[in-house]
Amino acid sequence: MIITVSAAAHSYDILLERGSLKRAAEQFDLDRRVLIVTDTGVPAEYSERVAALSARPFVEVIEQGEQSKSMQSLERLLSRMVAEGFTRSDCVVAVGGGVVGDLAGFAAACYMRGIDFYNIPTTVLSQVDSSIGGKVAVDFEGYKNIVGAFYPPMGVIIDPDVLSTLSERQIANGLAESVKAGLTGDSELFELFERGDIAENMDKIIERSLLFKRSVVERDEREGGCRRILNFGHTVGHAIESECGLSRYYHGECVALGMLPMCSPDVRARLLNVLKRLNLPTHSGCNIDNLIENMRHDKKCYGDDIHAVFVDRVGQCEVRSMPFEQFAAQIKGADI
Amino acid sequence: MIITVSAAAHSYDILLERGSLKRAAEQFDLDRRVLIVTDTGVPAEYSERVAALSARPFVEVIEQGEQSKSMQSLERLLSRMVAEGFTRSDCVVAVGGGVVGDLAGFAAACYMRGIDFYNIPTTVLSQVDSSIGGKVAVDFEGYKNIVGAFYPPMGVIIDPDVLSTLSERQIANGLAESVKAGLTGDSELFELFERGDIAENMDKIIERSLLFKRSVVERDEREGGCRRILNFGHTVGHAIESECGLSRYYHGECVALGMLPMCSPDVRARLLNVLKRLNLPTHSGCNIDNLIENMRHDKKCYGDDIHAVFVDRVGQCEVRSMPFEQFAAQIKGADI
Repeated sequence: MIITVSAAAHSYDILLERGSLKRAAEQFDLDRRVLIVTDTGVPAEYSERVAALSARPFVEVIEQGEQSKSMQSLERLLSRMVAEGFTRSDCVVAVGGGVVGDLAGFAAACYMRGIDFYNIPTTVLSQVDSSIGGKVAVDFEGYKNIVGAFYPPMGVIIDPDVLSTLSERQIANGLAESVKAGLTGDSELFELFERGDIAENMDKIIERSLLFKRSVVERDEREGGCRRILNFGHTVGHAIESECGLSRYYHGECVALGMLPMCSPDVRARLLNVLKRLNLPTHSGCNIDNLIENMRHDKKCYGDDIHAVFVDRVGQCEVRSMPFEQFAAQIKGADI
Repeated sequence: MIITVSAAAHSYDILLERGSLKRAAEQFDLDRRVLIVTDTGVPAEYSERVAALSARPFVEVIEQGEQSKSMQSLERLLSRMVAEGFTRSDCVVAVGGGVVGDLAGFAAACYMRGIDFYNIPTTVLSQVDSSIGGKVAVDFEGYKNIVGAFYPPMGVIIDPDVLSTLSERQIANGLAESVKAGLTGDSELFELFERGDIAENMDKIIERSLLFKRSVVERDEREGGCRRILNFGHTVGHAIESECGLSRYYHGECVALGMLPMCSPDVRARLLNVLKRLNLPTHSGCNIDNLIENMRHDKKCYGDDIHAVFVDRVGQCEVRSMPFEQFAAQIKGADI
């Protein structure tokens, strides 16, 4: 199926279909110089397949992991494009997870003030969440995504077949963002996690997650308003990431944990049940006071007020803007 | 007077008025953190005046010169914003010439995926040309402006009084871009240079140059079509810059020289007369074959075809797309 997303700059199509990776040249214009960016954790056959379909492919393989989302990696990609004589008419294709998509997308956004960018997400997390919405960035001086752009891709290919090489933990990690989509805006999607066969329903889960996210980003591309609901679970989640580092928990696992204190008691009970079904963590082992300290330090990113997202009923959420200290008082005492 | 410019992202006002620098706080929202970027060649009183009008000013003074338009300078500005706790609601103000505007604008474009950017150009070149159009960039690996964005400012203040501290050579350097505007699209502006008192007509020259550039960039913000006419004189001009380095000639002087071979004999004679009136160079001392070799090496930036801009009649121009070798044959033998 095709999901068309409207962005301010242009609309783009997401092709969601098993086996679609093989048909990348039908969706993307690869008849030019193509910088294919992938990482050491992605099976090489995926990027090789895209290379085989490209007129003039150049492959850059970065180290797997968040540390590759750096200015250094950005310069490496820009350097390669300069060296290979990329012009404004050439393009970049990301083949990988969120790190690869964010980095490659930002390189495409600023090379010659913007060349075409295509995305082939190969993890659940990037298929259900980060490949849609047009945010690209690198980390800088310890802050995640602090240097970047809003730069929608020219096209996205989501091939659920590529997920077969992922571990169960990686799959559950990505599904945490779908659980977030269900909790904040799609109760039927959430119920799939409560009762359905998850592996069997994977295509449906991806589709519903994308449709939910599209509805949000089309209303608020640049995060002035309702897009903030996508940050549900992320305020506390990011603090857990900083406290424990990504060696202990994956991003989606931190989001899963971060959602818990933001739910009403009834919703929290249902969420705990889903997290258990997915083998996602339900307890971080972090001290809530330490997490609050961490968020206070991070406060510069939010400004004086924090926009906290709460879910009192499954499928509905509310953004409450409040001084940071009020937010801290509210979640203090939560068992995370 | 106010000149309003429409860009895809938003419209913005250019205030063109003597003494307007003092009233920056009326035009710009400076009631927040403000990163003021300037360089060692700009009188410090200009940036100090803006700082005095800002709630929370932070001043970064970069070295004067093209070498400051680098990834290193970009990181320095981003670093300062991180260190001072800049949020999405804060802003950047450039106080300087094209280098300062391009660098500061790109830092604003990518910090937190874009914060407000204001521009106070303080050279003729930036007042008549680079402060309008929304192009921001840094140089990278020897290529000018190869990493950047289209990022229109939220506002521009042009105060011709600040030009009083410039040398005659710097003024003439900037006026070369106005001569370009006249030649390619405004014959009355060109005639001002042929017959008028230039110092006395400075405000009018700035205004007409801005109106001409606005008419072009509003039709073609992202340089897919007619914006190319702004490159008149720049293809050969950039080659002269590379051959001689900016120590010998300023940018506008290279553009002046680069326009000569692109004109019909009649227009060239009139242009030579204007260049002499302005004390701009009329002969580069470069070998045309060397310049062609230089352009051939630079060809990667243009792709296979080159879009060459020619002026056969004052106030009119034509973009001719042709293979590079045809272009080279056409200007071979020119006395530059």
